[in-house]
Order: sequence, then structure tokens, then C-alpha cells
Amino acid sequence: MPTSIDALKEKGRRLRIHSLKATTEAGSGHPSSCLSAADLVSVVFFREMRFDQRDPSNPGNDRFILSKGHAAPLLWAAYAEAGIIDEKEPLSLRRLDSVLEGHPTPRMPWVDVATGSLGQGLSAGLGNALAARLDDIPFNTYVLLGDGECAEGSVWEAAELASYYKIPNLFAIVDVNGLGQSQRTMDQFDVNRFAEKFRAFGWFAQTVDGHNYSEILDAFDRFRRDAGTLPRALVAKTFKGRGVSMLENREGWHGKPVPKQDLPAALAELAKPMGPDEFQPNPRTGFSLPRTLEPFDIKVERKRGETAATREAYGDALVKVAEKDSRIVALDGDTKNSTFSEKFLKAFPNRFFEMFIAEQNMVGVATGLSARGKIPFVSTFAAFFSRAYDQIRMAAVSRANVKFCGSHVGVSIGEDGPSQMGLEDLAMFRPIPGAVILYPSDAVSTERLVLEAVRYRGICYIRSTRPKTPVLYSNDEQFPIGGSKTLRKSVKDWATVVAAGITVHEALKASAKLESEGKPIRIIDAYSVKPIDREGILAAGRETAGRIVVVEDHYAEGGLGDAVLEAVGNQVKVVRLAVREIPQSGPPDALMEKYGISSEHIINAVREF
Amino acid sequence: MPTSIDALKEKGRRLRIHSLKATTEAGSGHPSSCLSAADLVSVVFFREMRFDQRDPSNPGNDRFILSKGHAAPLLWAAYAEAGIIDEKEPLSLRRLDSVLEGHPTPRMPWVDVATGSLGQGLSAGLGNALAARLDDIPFNTYVLLGDGECAEGSVWEAAELASYYKIPNLFAIVDVNGLGQSQRTMDQFDVNRFAEKFRAFGWFAQTVDGHNYSEILDAFDRFRRDAGTLPRALVAKTFKGRGVSMLENREGWHGKPVPKQDLPAALAELAKPMGPDEFQPNPRTGFSLPRTLEPFDIKVERKRGETAATREAYGDALVKVAEKDSRIVALDGDTKNSTFSEKFLKAFPNRFFEMFIAEQNMVGVATGLSARGKIPFVSTFAAFFSRAYDQIRMAAVSRANVKFCGSHVGVSIGEDGPSQMGLEDLAMFRPIPGAVILYPSDAVSTERLVLEAVRYRGICYIRSTRPKTPVLYSNDEQFPIGGSKTLRKSVKDWATVVAAGITVHEALKASAKLESEGKPIRIIDAYSVKPIDREGILAAGRETAGRIVVVEDHYAEGGLGDAVLEAVGNQVKVVRLAVREIPQSGPPDALMEKYGISSEHIINAVREF
Repeated sequence: MPTSIDALKEKGRRLRIHSLKATTEAGSGHPSSCLSAADLVSVVFFREMRFDQRDPSNPGNDRFILSKGHAAPLLWAAYAEAGIIDEKEPLSLRRLDSVLEGHPTPRMPWVDVATGSLGQGLSAGLGNALAARLDDIPFNTYVLLGDGECAEGSVWEAAELASYYKIPNLFAIVDVNGLGQSQRTMDQFDVNRFAEKFRAFGWFAQTVDGHNYSEILDAFDRFRRDAGTLPRALVAKTFKGRGVSMLENREGWHGKPVPKQDLPAALAELAKPMGPDEFQPNPRTGFSLPRTLEPFDIKVERKRGETAATREAYGDALVKVAEKDSRIVALDGDTKNSTFSEKFLKAFPNRFFEMFIAEQNMVGVATGLSARGKIPFVSTFAAFFSRAYDQIRMAAVSRANVKFCGSHVGVSIGEDGPSQMGLEDLAMFRPIPGAVILYPSDAVSTERLVLEAVRYRGICYIRSTRPKTPVLYSNDEQFPIGGSKTLRKSVKDWATVVAAGITVHEALKASAKLESEGKPIRIIDAYSVKPIDREGILAAGRETAGRIVVVEDHYAEGGLGDAVLEAVGNQVKVVRLAVREIPQSGPPDALMEKYGISSEHIINAVREF
Repeated sequence: MPTSIDALKEKGRRLRIHSLKATTEAGSGHPSSCLSAADLVSVVFFREMRFDQRDPSNPGNDRFILSKGHAAPLLWAAYAEAGIIDEKEPLSLRRLDSVLEGHPTPRMPWVDVATGSLGQGLSAGLGNALAARLDDIPFNTYVLLGDGECAEGSVWEAAELASYYKIPNLFAIVDVNGLGQSQRTMDQFDVNRFAEKFRAFGWFAQTVDGHNYSEILDAFDRFRRDAGTLPRALVAKTFKGRGVSMLENREGWHGKPVPKQDLPAALAELAKPMGPDEFQPNPRTGFSLPRTLEPFDIKVERKRGETAATREAYGDALVKVAEKDSRIVALDGDTKNSTFSEKFLKAFPNRFFEMFIAEQNMVGVATGLSARGKIPFVSTFAAFFSRAYDQIRMAAVSRANVKFCGSHVGVSIGEDGPSQMGLEDLAMFRPIPGAVILYPSDAVSTERLVLEAVRYRGICYIRSTRPKTPVLYSNDEQFPIGGSKTLRKSVKDWATVVAAGITVHEALKASAKLESEGKPIRIIDAYSVKPIDREGILAAGRETAGRIVVVEDHYAEGGLGDAVLEAVGNQVKVVRLAVREIPQSGPPDALMEKYGISSEHIINAVREF
């Protein structure tokens, strides 16, 4: 029995009251952005959605994502009115002791993905919707977007992919209040233009008056009747601050609460009940998801000295772990024949998502898939993860369990030139709290590290290399996160060379010559860039007369060099070899030489101690 | 007198031959992606464009941007056929001794902006076109896009803004060859769908057969006749590898040159001349741009002890430098009332561009403006520059002269929560070769550092702070790039505290208490994070018993702490205070305390030496 239209109106009124009170109490926040969307949220939460009030993780729940995250007080209000949190709890908004933050984060258990960096919610919603398809659970995902954030290209990346994959259980609800933070939006109240954009991107789009309940209800009915397999966009003309005359459709009120002295007058305008206060949640039950699996191992079968690109070993390993763990899915941005995620596609076509050349949406979708219990492995050229750094940052705020694999790192890719070289990827991932960074140098360590990535719950970045490299390790070697490997060692070592990936092989090349000069080196494969093996590297440095050379195919700042320096502090002298200018096209070996990270440079650095 | 259609066809044939030969000679590259666009490029270069063959920087030149940068051999071929480079020079493709790289970079003087990270060219083109309007020069900008890269949302960010600003001198030419790197594209050959997307975004769009010269010519004529003030999109159905049967419309040939042994057969298919080999460039002359100005100063008028937010001082300073230097323009992503770039808007409305909530396009446009001699100052919340990290990276490859100002950094913003806090911005900018990072702590240093940013040619990042801070410096104090300031000093100093921005004030708070305990501290304001004042900080560390505390409102990796460690090496003991987990909403002071960067934490760190 759906909620009556008068009860929905009453819920809308109550949502407004919560939003005003909470922001005035907090002394900051965005009440006017809440009020424009209150009627839309009322219909979605109290008529359309099916969920189990007691269980945010019920797999059958419909999902709601507040892409316009600054309207967080409205979301907290909806949870209060749905009986999920206490009706007083919204007043704790933005306090240090509250999980009801200024923008939604999963510290509040009903929030799947953090929002507040605009234009990301539709991607996360698409991730949810793809998970629904994978798990064959008929839940819907509703994403509330602001009109201003539709200027973000990531919205259109998500839109085109949702249409490509024919996802009817994804709803974009656009709150067109015409006002941005600092001025009127680009398209102002032109809801038809928004609808035309969605239609051009393959959606079933309708326009409504976002404060007219019958129109909104009719539109949802029409979606059910006519939208077929198309994703659904409801473009609603609204007014910012609707219902409170001092705010309604006025500029200069973005992000400002009603002052305490004006609150009674504002609330007085919302004093009159509009219908019965009634709501019965409508749960969808009977669905379950695979439990977390028992720990498993994989079988590695490489021959020492054979060559293989770590990027190719990544593809091999991905298939092996996916055979053991059905939660693993893979996404790639039209580079699958370079990153070798195509091996996964061949083995598990239904669990692979071609995301085309749209990295922001790829990462946003991965975050949404993670929220539904999947373990997404996302691959592209390392350089192109820079396209999605905001989404990666927000994946961390979302506490997502996403694995990234960046291929084609550094100048060792050669002739394609600087636009294709990942040279700042370590610097991007190192600051992310809790992120693990793994950088294999051969096929065995790659396979083992992919398994370690699965075992770790959180964000993990794997850096793979374009050229082939010889297998260095035996198949049963273990590569725990936070460890390192000592590849060459003697009591007479003159210095320690800390390398990773391709530079491990340069260090090995340097070793023989240095040994013949009476300056043998210890070689450490720092396959775990974060956390780094502080004790191991420090001990090696101390045992080799306090001398370390760090060599990396990455810019000088933010990568392995900084990680080693942080680890060893002032106890060891560290010389750093890294790329220090914008590189150019050329043969890989010539570039390694030109930019100072080849075996010759290692030899010279060791000699100079 | 325009080139005849037969002569254009002949140019198309010759462009194909160059592209095949160069890639086979190089042993890598993307010939099939060149061949699909050869006829389009022929018409654009040899019939539509007006340029001075001898002068790439002639302000009247029409501009061409190869957004699908992997077709670089086609671009080099066009320059050869235009008489700009020697006809043999394309054979040097991808060599270490050549400026003809695998993807275009400005090492080749006719390239304005580097491409190769897909989906960025239209933004740069829009920047060029906006510069044309500012300077009142009627040049056109032609951007050649691939169909695959139109999946990038940044394309649609540029599209909607070009329409908003009514830019008719911008042409998007979309080469719809239907084949991506690893499979068919999302929309395959559906040129109408592409055209509908452009139309929904406010463009005048036409579809053509991209190998039919009369159709292409007619379309350009119709643009002139009917497109009015709308930006113009030519959506062309083409075949990858067109003209060579072993390549044409076949999968598996992306990024692969024709093998040496097959080249003669491929060239044989292109053996027959199609018309006369004639071309007369059609220059547009008589335009000039303002020269580089003489060095200038600004007047700073602050009172010591007064409080002002550095973000607000940024706006004040921007107006002052813009009064002196007409090349300065400002861009903001609907945060101008928070970053205070609105002060610039009020003073110079014609030189301010509201870019709405689309940071990728904002940075891409800035790169295009820089290519036309402007000095763009780009501002938004620091956190949201992560949205445009790929464009920032490519701005560096483009040798662009762009200044970025990120406001609302760190946990000191308070209640808005982690999505709004810039905590990885220093880590983003530090690896960029040549980038300068400036982080003022008060209004005086802010104003001076904005001036330093103007004086520096290259990428510069200014980090501004949300809360107000007291003025620390006298108005005539100078803040050279690479310097630092010692705010407190005695011969008895127990330790050095290196701080920047908001943490300078925490260090000052800590100072009195530590002095009363007999542990006076030296305080260094490291306003130049990159390059850092190595000598100054090292000397301070040595003079204070080898003890340094670094404290920053940034994640622990990649920021000031790493910069100081790199500077002092193993000569000083460094203790680092920084944010080490995902923060939450709360009052600024409480967050500084909770996340370990408040004066109390500084005091404890100093005590523990």
C-alpha cells in the first residue's frame, strides 16, 4: 500500500523543518539546497523505495545516493523520517561526535559512498545497478543530482555507459533549482535542455515541476510503463529554499543557514501539517550475497630467467584469483589489450566491464560495485588514473575496496612519449590514507601481489611495467604487504640500492660491474612501496656503511625516493635517482639513460659515495 | 583562391603515404588512426585554415589541435605538405633526436598544446577561441577528435561551455572510425547519435562521409552560411586504415605500423596521384599581441596583527597584478565567492571566465589561453584540482604558463568534511617538473606570492587557507621563490619548527609555552614548498641541535614533510606532524587537534626531542 499523496506532502514539510533546524543549530550547511529537493526526496524515500529499515546491508534494499552531497541534512532528515535514526539525531549535524557529517560519508552506515565532490554520484549509482544485474537482485538505485553538478563531464560519462549497458534500474533525479554556489547555473531553469541531453545520451527522460507531487508520481508511473530497458532521468524544475520566503529562489543563500533569530519565522511558514504523518517501509526480502570466502592461495608457474611483462602476469593472476573468489570483477578503459585485463574478459565475460575511454566514471562505478560487496580490479595506463584522482580520493573517503592496476609506467615505455608515461602515479596514491602500493618487478611477484591485493581490504594500487622482464623469484616465494626482497647481499657490500619494478633489473645489471670494482652492492626490491619495509631498508642501509641509492622510474617527488627517505630518516645517506624533467619519445633504454635511472647512473651514484 | 578538390584529394593521398612510411620506419605508432582522418585534415589544412607558414606564433594564424594525439604522424605529414617542415622530416618520428614525438608536444613549435591523453583537445581549443575573442582576432580553432575519446566527459564539459559563451570560431571535427584500441567504440558508426549529443549541448552539428571531399567542403560552407553564433561540430563517418586494404576497418591494427615487408604493397594501393600537388597558404596578417611587460611591483597595505584570510588576499592581489599586466585572466569553477576570484570579476569582467562546475575543462581552457599568450589564474577548492590532475599534468607537458590557486585546504576548513578538504594537493603538484608551489601564511605574503607567480614563467600552485589569520609581515617584505622566513629565532633554540600556511600560526602559539619551559623554538615559514629553501632549513636545523619538527595541514605523504626531508637529507632529525587518516566534520580547532597538527602536538613533539 503506497503512502498517500497527503502523507508524502507532510513528509516533505517535515524534511524541510529538519533541514532548517539542523543547519541553524550547526551554524553552517546548505539548507536552501535541501529545500529544493525535499519533495523529490519525499516521493523517492516514502513511496518509491523498498528497504529494510533495520538493515542497511540487506541486499534487496533499493539504494539512494545523494550526489549533491551538500544537501546532507536532507538525507539525515529522510533517515529520521524513515525511522532509521532518532528524530533528534539530525540536530547533531557536523559535530565531532556525530556520524552525520557536512557531506555524506559511510561513517553513517546507510551511506554507501561518500559524496560532496560533485558529479560522482551517478557513476557510483551505475556501479550499484551493475551489481544488481550481476547478482540478479531487482533493486533500484536512485541518484539525486543537482543541476550545477551536471556541468561535470563525469555525469555524462556515467550517462552514456548506463545507456550502453541498458540499465533500467538506475534513476537520475535532477534537482534543477537554477542556482549554483556563486551565481545562476549555466542552463538555469531550462529543464528541457537537460532532458534533451539525457535523451541524446540514450536515456528515457521526463521533465516535471519538482514541487508538484502528482506530476512526480505520474512520472514514476510512466517510467514503469514506458521506459523499457532505458535508464531513467527525472528532470525537475524546483526552487532553492522552496517553502521559506527569505530563501526561496534568492541568490546569496548557498551554503548559509538561516540565522538563529530568523529561524522561528522560517519555521512558522512550515507550521501547518499537510497530511497524516504515516509511512510503512516496503522491504524487499529473500536475497543474499556470497559470504566472504576462506583464505585461498593460487598456483604460480613461472621459470626463472624466462621473460614476461608484469602487465601480462597481472592478467594471468587476475584470472586465477577470480576463479577462487566470485566477488572479483574487472573494469578497463579500452586498454584491455595493453593492461592484459583482456585475459579476465576471456575467462569471465560477465564479470568484465568495458568502460571505454572514461576513467572518472570507471573509478566511480568501481566504488559503487565495491559498495555492493564486489572487489573491482580497475586497469588502465597508470598515467590515465590521473584523470580520476578525485574519484580515487573519494573512493578512499568511501572506504571502498577497490584495486587499481596502472600499466605503462615511466620512461621505460619508450616511444609513445610523455603523455602516455605514468610518472606521478605513486605520488597520487601514497597520500591516500590506508592505500597500499605494490610494484612488482617480475611475473612471480606480480601474481603474488595480485593475491595480496585481494587479501587486503581497502584501496590497493598495483604498478605494472610495459617491457618484458626476466623472472627473478621462485614460484613459492611470498610477498607480504610491507615487505621487501634482498636480491643480492654480501658482508662486504659498499652500498644498498633500493629499486622497484624495472629499476630492479637496472640494479642487477649494475651489480656485476660494481663488484668487479670492489664495490659490491646490496639490492633491495621494494615491491611494497606503501607500506614500505622500514626495518628491512634501514637495516640494509646500516649494514652497508649508511649508504643507499634509490632508483625509480617516476618523477623525483612523491614516489619511492620519498618513501625510503621517510623510512630511514636521518640514519642513512640517501642518493635519489629519478626522472627530473618532462621526458620525450625515444627507445626505452635510451630514455632510462637520458633521464638518469639506468644501470650506468646507478654505477656512478654508488661510485660517488 | 582555395585549393581545388583534386588537389585536396592528392594532399590526402600524400598524408597517408607519410603516415605509413613514418610509422613503419619508427617501428611503432598508429597509422590506421591517421588514415581515417587524412581526408578531413586535408580539407582543414589546405582549404579552410589561414596561417603564415613561416611563423607559428603569428597571432592571426588559425589554430589546429590534434586531440586524438596518437595520430601525430598525420599532423607531422600535414606540416610537411604545408611546407613547414622538410618532406623527409616525418621519417624521424619518435626518434630521440627528433621533435616529432609519438604524440604531439610543443617541442615542435607549431604544436600549441600537448595531446595524447584523450579528450582534452576541445578544452584547449576553447581556450584558444576565448583568447581570439579577448584579443579581437578573427582566427578559427579546429580540433580533430577521435570518436573513442568522446567518451571522456571533459569533451562535454568543453562542449557545453563553448555553447554557453557562444563561440562560433571553434570547430570540433569528429573522426568516427568506429574502432577503439581494444574493440569497437561505444557508439560505433552512429554519427547521428554523436550529432544529436552535440546539438543537445548547443552546437551546430552536421554529419558527413569523412572520405567524401564534396560533402566535407559543403559542410564547411554550410557552417559559414547557417551556424550563426553556435560552435560547430562536423561528425564524419570514416574507416580506420582507409585506403590500405590490409588495415581498412579491421580490428587488431590499433597502434601497429605496417610491417616493413608489407609496406610496398600498402603504398602501391596509394601509388596513383589524384590531382595536382599544389597548395598556397592563405595567411591572415596585421594582428599583434601585447609584448611582455617590464617588471612591475604592487603596493601592499596591510596592518600587522589584523586578520584576513589568505584566500581573500589572493583576490585582492589578483586585481593588483591584473591592473599592471593585461595578459592576466582569471577562471573559476563556481567557487568565486569562496576563492575570492570574484574580486577579479568585479574589476575585470571581460577577463574573467566563469567555468561552472567542470574543473577538467577549466584547466584545459587555461592551457589553451596560455598557448595564446595569456596568463590564466585558475581557482577552485584545492580538493577539486584533483578532478583535473590529468589536465594539470598535460599542462606541464604543454609547457603552459598557468597559475593555480587552491583554497579550503586541510582539516582547518572544519565542518564541511573530508570531501571538501584539500589534503593531497601538494602531493599532486610537487612531482610536476618545473612547477612552483607557494603557500602563504598571511595576507602580505599572499599578495607578494601572487606577484611572484606572475613573474615566474611556468606552472605555479598557490595554496590558500579558509580561516582568517593575523598579518605577520611588514608590507615591504619580499618573498622570493625558493626562500623561507624565520619568524622566531634565538641562539638558545632547542628545535626548529618548519610550518606553512595555517600551521605557522600553530607554531607561533606553541612558541611561548615552549619558551617558558626553557625550550625555545625557531620557527620557519616555508612559504615556498617547491623549490624549498634547502640551505635555510638545513642551517636552522643544524643551529638547533639537529632537530626539526615539520607540521602541515596535508596528508603525511608528498607534502611539506617530504620536501623538508629531501632538503635536509640525513643531516638533521625530522619529526613529521601531518594528517594520517581520513578526517571528518568538526570545528577547525578541534580537527587540528584530533589529527595531530595543533600547537599542542607541536609542543609535545618538541618536548620529545
